Parts: sequence; structure tokens; C-alpha cells
Amino acid sequence: MPMEKEVVASPLAPPGFPKLPEVSGVRLASAACGLRYSGRDDVMMTEFDRGTTVAGVLTRSLTAAAPVEWCREALGKGRARALVVNAGNANAFTGRAGTKSVERSIGVAAKLIGCARREVFVASTGVIGEPLPDEKITDALAGLRRSLTPSAWDRAAGAIMTTDTFAKAATRTARIGDTEIVINGIAKGSGMIAPDMATMLAFVFTDAALPASVLQPLLEAANRRSFNSITVDGDTSTSDTVLLFATGKARHAKIPSHRDSALRGFRAALESLMVDLAQQIIRDGEGAEKFVTISVTGAASSRAARVIGLAVANSPLVKTAIAGEDANWGRIVMAVGKAGERADRDRLRIAIGGFPITEDGRVRPGYDETPVAEHMKGREIAIEIDVGVGNGRWTVWTCDLTHGYININADYRS
Amino acid sequence: MPMEKEVVASPLAPPGFPKLPEVSGVRLASAACGLRYSGRDDVMMTEFDRGTTVAGVLTRSLTAAAPVEWCREALGKGRARALVVNAGNANAFTGRAGTKSVERSIGVAAKLIGCARREVFVASTGVIGEPLPDEKITDALAGLRRSLTPSAWDRAAGAIMTTDTFAKAATRTARIGDTEIVINGIAKGSGMIAPDMATMLAFVFTDAALPASVLQPLLEAANRRSFNSITVDGDTSTSDTVLLFATGKARHAKIPSHRDSALRGFRAALESLMVDLAQQIIRDGEGAEKFVTISVTGAASSRAARVIGLAVANSPLVKTAIAGEDANWGRIVMAVGKAGERADRDRLRIAIGGFPITEDGRVRPGYDETPVAEHMKGREIAIEIDVGVGNGRWTVWTCDLTHGYININADYRS
Repeated sequence: MPMEKEVVASPLAPPGFPKLPEVSGVRLASAACGLRYSGRDDVMMTEFDRGTTVAGVLTRSLTAAAPVEWCREALGKGRARALVVNAGNANAFTGRAGTKSVERSIGVAAKLIGCARREVFVASTGVIGEPLPDEKITDALAGLRRSLTPSAWDRAAGAIMTTDTFAKAATRTARIGDTEIVINGIAKGSGMIAPDMATMLAFVFTDAALPASVLQPLLEAANRRSFNSITVDGDTSTSDTVLLFATGKARHAKIPSHRDSALRGFRAALESLMVDLAQQIIRDGEGAEKFVTISVTGAASSRAARVIGLAVANSPLVKTAIAGEDANWGRIVMAVGKAGERADRDRLRIAIGGFPITEDGRVRPGYDETPVAEHMKGREIAIEIDVGVGNGRWTVWTCDLTHGYININADYRS
Repeated sequence: MPMEKEVVASPLAPPGFPKLPEVSGVRLASAACGLRYSGRDDVMMTEFDRGTTVAGVLTRSLTAAAPVEWCREALGKGRARALVVNAGNANAFTGRAGTKSVERSIGVAAKLIGCARREVFVASTGVIGEPLPDEKITDALAGLRRSLTPSAWDRAAGAIMTTDTFAKAATRTARIGDTEIVINGIAKGSGMIAPDMATMLAFVFTDAALPASVLQPLLEAANRRSFNSITVDGDTSTSDTVLLFATGKARHAKIPSHRDSALRGFRAALESLMVDLAQQIIRDGEGAEKFVTISVTGAASSRAARVIGLAVANSPLVKTAIAGEDANWGRIVMAVGKAGERADRDRLRIAIGGFPITEDGRVRPGYDETPVAEHMKGREIAIEIDVGVGNGRWTVWTCDLTHGYININADYRS
């Protein structure tokens, strides 16, 4: 029952839960079902009005959890009426029993709402390998449905937390034609993977009227620049799930293609919202004391820039140096070298906090570490790397690797 | 001057320095040159008799250090008369000045010995990005040469240490035909990469009479099963260097090919010695409290088995669980899933300490964690993973991720 100990919010947490507007066609509720925690909500339900479309990106893990496999199947239809999420148990590596659990939850929810089973989406996050006591969830669904409201965003975001120290949400507006669209999102995750826990979940809700065939490429593009560009520890969860629901309540013109120029504002707002949520996950990274932005330029391609950025962001030596407030640019050189992407050692330029450090394959003559050391003492660390071979660029976000990470992960399950 | 604080040997250290015989044609010496440390040797020199051949494997880092670039070039000739190694400064990312440093050291050594420059091999390990004060080394070479002896293995192994807590060496004998061959090896490294320090060096010496064209494939094969199968933190050094020197003093029949059946015993002894040295590096892994053997079977190929083994061995969540003595097999499932190699979730079998834990895609019915928890309290942890798709197998070695690692790496440079 890990939540019984007092949770201290991350030093990188935002000042408070943002004010989220309603999204027409979306109602939410949450409840305490005692799956693992006591004294807090651990199940949340969302009901969508008829006509809601859905897109999703799911973990590529080859040991994916049962709810992920269900979502992969249900996304084929592209329509959604309900979302049921529980925290405390990931229903991962639970064999045939895990699949049965999902089927029972889906069945009860579909009957209650009067929709097709494939219009019900589920996600589970928590311990791996323990059977999910799904009756605790299904017993609560009727009560949850009665308490649905269009405003329970904070409680919904709180109910899906595991080792998170704060509830994560963001909101944006955009115009499609002359119609204003709302996009809300909630997320959980305290580590690209949380310990034992599985793991990163994000749910995005909009009143835009877009078919699943348009939503899916929009979501994938925004996902690459947001959730796929963060890392706490390089571990990939069995349950990572991002779902985007569009209720179609907004009365804008029909948009047949994701390339439609009317989507420019929506696309930007969606990416901005998802980057916001992704950064909140890093701000709640296990044991995190520093928020680190790594901007890679001059790579052979944007893909190469991302690989290099993640090699730096995942390097235990870079992350521990940041924890130690050490402007140890030698470790950045090392991580660039091991990334396996093209880089020119003798044109590599590294800057920290905006202060250039290297040129011509060595430290700059007269390099003064004083302002860089001062920057390392702050909460927000900026690392810029130009690898000197092309025009590819990418930005990734990570946190430092601290004693707090070891404390959380060496002691979590027991 | 980090070595001024008292160094406590790793709890996983072997009982003492092994007794190494002489290798005919090899003489060694070491000296304190004050490169970074005080009160200890930090340069070692080896001289080889005429006729010595050499093979090498070097870091694939794209930001390789200057001495590595020199070795890559010199290996083309396949002949060696001297090896000069310093600790305290890696001469990495030092630009044109770094190359000049290497050239000066090579030049002085070649003149002293009366050999070609390309018969002199160099390696440097220590801080990245600081100019190497090579005159401290070149000034010492004449004195070093006068003090060469065939027996100074312990001092030579000690002189190349950085954050190592014990000197690493191993010896084997083998027969080629009826002739007994000696193989000695020394290594340093306290992390696949040591902090800021760069990093893993190993030097192997034999009196076998083998041309470089035979030595090289033998070394590469043994390297795959030894140094390329260990990981402390997944970081790849700018300076990793393994060199194998053969003096040719042993009077066995000529061996024209590395496939010659007369090499069977030598090949096995070489691999055994290199696995021994590689395991000693893990036993000195930064902050290591547990030595972990991960045996992967049932993979699509031996390459796939190695990728899966390293994914588990590099997972911060698996490593922190081991540090916490937590039999957290769910994290092993996660790491297998993220490896990207073929695995059958529902046939995946995991055993810890010889005790089977999973079957049919879930925990075994009636699984009793008691003996596994007992195993986790020991120093030597054995993890077996069968991924259920083929016959590929590989073994990798790692250590746990502890507060000690953070202490060493957050505080190292400053």
C-alpha cells in the first residue's frame, strides 16, 4: 500500500492543477476500489457521446499487457463510448486470466452503456504479474456511471496515478475554420516507465469532429515529438498507452484528410498539449531534481538527431553528473560517440546553459566554467549539441539520476 | 586527486592478486609520474622482444580518443615492440593537441627501443577533455626501460587503475601441439565505462608464435564472449582497448590459419582468461554489491540472445531491484519486451537462483518466493531466461545499480 506514506510533490512540479474546461460529449467519474491503495481513488471511467472517434498509440513491447492488446484490437473500429482505467495493477504478464479480466470489464461496461464491446477502451497501470481482481472494478461501474460529470478532470487525473507525485493535465484551444475546439489531456507516469509499475498513460479529449483515419496520423505525429521524446530511464513499459478521443460536438466543416490545411492550428495545439503532458511526466521523474532539455542539431537526419539526443538523455553517467551539478561535458562527448549515428568529433559543439564549451574537437581556449557551474545549480538544465554533419534536429527531455531513483526502485515492491 | 581517499576493495573482489608466471619475451615496469594521482604508479611500460605480433579490438565510439586512433593505425602492421599506458588522463577529445601528444610519446619510445614507430602501442585512461601532459610520460620512459623485469605484473596492473578498487589479472596455460603456452592478462575498468574516465583496458600477453592474421580472429571471437558480454551502465567508452601480444618464443609448429585444430586448447584458454578478466571488471563495477549472471536461451539466434541479455542487464529497473534484493521478475519481463528481439510472451520462462518462476505467460501456480528471496540476499545472482522461440543462447554479466554508483558518479570530477 505504497500511497499510505505521505507523497511529497516533485520539486519540479507545476504550481497546481490547471483549470480545464468541459469538452462537450465527455463525462468523467472516479472511485476508490481498493485495488492496491487505500484512501484514494484508483479507478476512473469516462463516457463519450455517440459519434466519438478514437486514435491510439500503444507500447511496442513484445510483452505487452492484456489491456494493450485489447486496445490494439478495438482501435481497428475507431469508435469509442467508454474508457475505464485502473491504477495499482497493470494486468500485465497475467496469461489467459488477464485476457479474461479484460473481457469481463469490457462486457460489463458495454452492457451498462448499451454499446458495442469494441467501443470500450481499457488501461491498467501498476504491479506486473499479479492477477487483476476485476470484480472490484466491474462492481463499481454502475455507481461510477451515476456520478459522471463533465468537470471531474482533477479527480480523474488523480485516480490513475501510481508513483506519480502530482496529477498531470493540460488544455489547449484551436480553431478549425471558424469553430473553436477544446483539447484536454490527462496523463500519468513517473518515469518513462515507472517501477514494476506499468506505466505511462495519457488520454486526450477533444470536441473536434474528425474521423479516426484523420485522428490517427495527427496523434502519431504529435506523439513522436512529445511522449516518444522523453525518457527517465530508457525502460519501455508493457502498458504505454496514449488514446485521443474526439466527440465530434464542434460544428466545423468536414475534414476528410489529416493533410487538410484547416488542421494547422489543431495540429499545433495537439502537439503543444502533448509536449506539455510529456514534460510533466519528466517533471515527476522518479527522484528527479533537475529538468533537462537536450537540443540536438547538425545531425544527418531528424531521426539521427533523436537517437543521439536519447543516447545522451539515457546515459547514466550524464544523468548522474547532472545530479551532482557537474558541468561534465566529457560525458556528453562519450554519449554522442556511443549513439552510433554520424557525428564529426572535430566539429562537435556542445553548449550548456547557452555557454559554448567545445570547438575544433577540444575545449574552447580560455573556457571559463564559472557561469556553466552556476547554471548546473538550477532546476532547468539546457544542453545543446551540434554534431556538425547535416541539418537534422530534435529535442528530447529527461531528468537527472539521483539517490531518489534508487530509493524508489530498490524498495518499491517489497 | 581522487586516489588520496582510501580505496575500499569491492565486496565482490577476488581474495587477492593471482600468481602470474613470466611470459618469455615480455618485460614490464611502472612508475609514479604524477599525472593526476599522488603516491601511486600511473604509467606502465612493456617491452616485447623482436618478432612479437599483436591483435586488437578497439572502441566503436565515434568520439574515440587519440591513442585509440593510433592503435587502429598501428595494428595494420601487426607487430609490437612496446606498450605504454597511463592512468589519470584519457587524452580523449583533446583535438590536434591530443594527436601531437601521442606522436611525441610514440617517438620517444621508438627511439629508446630502436624500433619502428608503428611497433609502439599506447593507451590512456582517465579524465576526458584535458590536455595530456605527455612530457611527464616521455621524461620517465628511459628510467622505466632500465627497470623492466619479467615479473612486475602486479605493479603494472596497479598502475593502470582509475576508479578500480583492485588490480585485475588472470593467467592460463594451453598446449599448441606438444608445446605449453602461457597466456597472461591484465585489465582495468570499474564500469563498462568508468566515470568521466575512459575506461576499459585489457592487455593479454602470450609466448605463442602466431601471426597477427591468426591472432586477430581469435581475439575477436574471445572478445565477443567476454568483454562484449559485460555491462555496468550501458555507456560505451571513448577509449576501450583490448590488445593481445604474442612474443613467438614458444617452439610449436607453424600455425597458418586461425581455424587450425591445433588451436583448440589455446582458443579455449584465451576465452577463459578474457571471461575471467571481464568478470573481474564487473566485480569492480562502480558501487556493485551483487554479481549477476544472465543466461538467455531459446532465442531466435545467439545475436538475439545477446541483445535480450544486455537489455535485461542494462535495465535500471532490473538493476535497482537486484540492489534492493527484490525478486522482481516483472521487471525482467518488461526488459525482455523492450529488447526488440523475438520472444513469445506466453512461452517465456524465467528462473532466479535456479527456481522457475513463470510459465504459460504468467507466474507458476503455487509459486513460493521464499527460496528466491533468500537467493537475492547473496552476492552471486543467477537469472535464467528462456524466450521460447529458437535455439540461440548467450550469457552476459552485470552488477546491481546502487547508491554507491550515484555517489561515485555524481561526485567524481568535482
